[in-house]
Amino acid sequence: MSGLFREETAVKKFMNSVDTVLTESLDGFVAAHADILVLGDEHKFIRRKTLRPGKVALISGGGSGHEPLHGGFVGHGMLDAACPGQVFTSPTPDQMLAAAEAVDTGAGSLFIVKNYEGDVMNFDMAAEMSEGVQQIVTNDDVAVENSSYTTGRRGVAGTLVVEKIVGAAAEHGLALAPLKALGDRVNTATRSMGVALTSCTVPAAGKPTFDIGDGEMEFGVGIHGEPGRRRDTLKSADAIAQEICAAILGDLGDKAKGPALLFVNGFGGTPLMELYLMYNSARAIFEKHGVTVTRSLVGSYVTSLDMAGCSITLTMLDEETTAFWDAPVHTAALRWGM
Amino acid sequence: MSGLFREETAVKKFMNSVDTVLTESLDGFVAAHADILVLGDEHKFIRRKTLRPGKVALISGGGSGHEPLHGGFVGHGMLDAACPGQVFTSPTPDQMLAAAEAVDTGAGSLFIVKNYEGDVMNFDMAAEMSEGVQQIVTNDDVAVENSSYTTGRRGVAGTLVVEKIVGAAAEHGLALAPLKALGDRVNTATRSMGVALTSCTVPAAGKPTFDIGDGEMEFGVGIHGEPGRRRDTLKSADAIAQEICAAILGDLGDKAKGPALLFVNGFGGTPLMELYLMYNSARAIFEKHGVTVTRSLVGSYVTSLDMAGCSITLTMLDEETTAFWDAPVHTAALRWGM
Repeated sequence: MSGLFREETAVKKFMNSVDTVLTESLDGFVAAHADILVLGDEHKFIRRKTLRPGKVALISGGGSGHEPLHGGFVGHGMLDAACPGQVFTSPTPDQMLAAAEAVDTGAGSLFIVKNYEGDVMNFDMAAEMSEGVQQIVTNDDVAVENSSYTTGRRGVAGTLVVEKIVGAAAEHGLALAPLKALGDRVNTATRSMGVALTSCTVPAAGKPTFDIGDGEMEFGVGIHGEPGRRRDTLKSADAIAQEICAAILGDLGDKAKGPALLFVNGFGGTPLMELYLMYNSARAIFEKHGVTVTRSLVGSYVTSLDMAGCSITLTMLDEETTAFWDAPVHTAALRWGM
Repeated sequence: MSGLFREETAVKKFMNSVDTVLTESLDGFVAAHADILVLGDEHKFIRRKTLRPGKVALISGGGSGHEPLHGGFVGHGMLDAACPGQVFTSPTPDQMLAAAEAVDTGAGSLFIVKNYEGDVMNFDMAAEMSEGVQQIVTNDDVAVENSSYTTGRRGVAGTLVVEKIVGAAAEHGLALAPLKALGDRVNTATRSMGVALTSCTVPAAGKPTFDIGDGEMEFGVGIHGEPGRRRDTLKSADAIAQEICAAILGDLGDKAKGPALLFVNGFGGTPLMELYLMYNSARAIFEKHGVTVTRSLVGSYVTSLDMAGCSITLTMLDEETTAFWDAPVHTAALRWGM
């Protein structure tokens, strides 16, 4: 039992030992979704069971602890493979190469990478060692310009939107260059910002990543619990939504008019009841500004282990991106139309 | 801001005031799913936007705080309406009557009720004041024989399975009496048990429902945080799964052979990574016993606000119930085949 405890404080997690949390979870994940998913050797990647020859292969990945991102988005209409790193740790180039080899059917591969130094470096290395690879780097987080782990903005929940829309376009038959352009366009049309009410606890650390008082929140928090804009006293849902939406709208500028996808994302420890309440606040603010919320997503999709908190993402849509958002998808975490 | 604070301790929830948590959340919920859902007057119920004349109407409900249950299961292939009570408080007969009036198209109504005294009493009253109503009372929790709020076993996560299978059968055209019989049969084939690692916090109470030490868990906890079998020291995931699965298998007796649905449910504060790890443990135990896991569901579907913990549900399947489980469903929280 020693693996469950650190400094005489129990880690309040369902696990057998810190060393096997990831592999046991992946084994369960692929067993539960064996109709659509296969696990790569040595747990290097999760891939679609059935590949479609001639389709550009979409590969993503990153540190674990953000589930269902990215493994939960592998399947028809979204990713072909996802590489899970250790918790909050970039996957290795070796994993990406193995994934690319497993799912590339000759039309090339597109890596979708969240902007963190480790991820970018390792995906870059894998791309250099492969042929016919392009990359999209997501950086939708408006909270901070640079952060603990990034030069430039962090890639957060908006990555889901890029993966869904580019995934549908790949299924539709788009080639590598236009897919890369589409992904960059969706990323540019997307802004996010989050707030944490509690810290997450990394299993191997055994204690909260950061301390936060009973009456405090971390405004602009990152998805690894890294600092945001400031520590503040806990505000009402409307006040929190107001500040996040203002940051998003301010950053979008003139683009913040017309149809949009509003995505309220939970960080893992926040129940749906509160997420829908935040959605209600955010939607009213955006619509008052001239945004028309034509598509919605509410749930815990890009998480930070057990952190209580949420992020708000707005993606400005056009006719093409709306159609790709609506297109059929069949993954563990997102499914419609099939 | 006073509504956010109790006894100088901030309630770490996204909310504007304790009095409007439920209505604001419902407003957001129905706005996000306006393509399929409509809110009844005075927030009395959530119903399908489009009704199907001649189909038996399925109506459920219960205290709020268990989201997505039940509102998240309203839509094609599942419920016609759901009545949300205040947090952990039964809805009123008035709500059920309003819902039944709104969705009954002449083929009768079936109430699906979790076994709690308040829910049973209020649904009974509504049934007596209506015509052509039958009821299914779910009681899948093997943890305790009687509890704080029940005579007999509590109805917990297995209620989702009853709602899905009976919902598909209603869509398929089954009449009221066979639907009632099918629901009772699915309930009888279903067993659940849960464990809590932390308490939940009811917004209006402003503090945790129960105290639990750093190294403790509540074994057999109810979905309102009510006591289970015992308080124990935190065990490994395998040890927890072993005891839950043994209780389920022991109670099912000779029936625990052959095809089954394994449903690992999060209570709201537990991330997917841990739920899939628990699924992995539970599946191995059930399969060793002679159960064949042919269908799976993993996620936070029947929650207890922000409680960390999970439950394991096993439903023994046959050809008919498997087909109804697989049938198309389009609700906010469960969707496939359409």
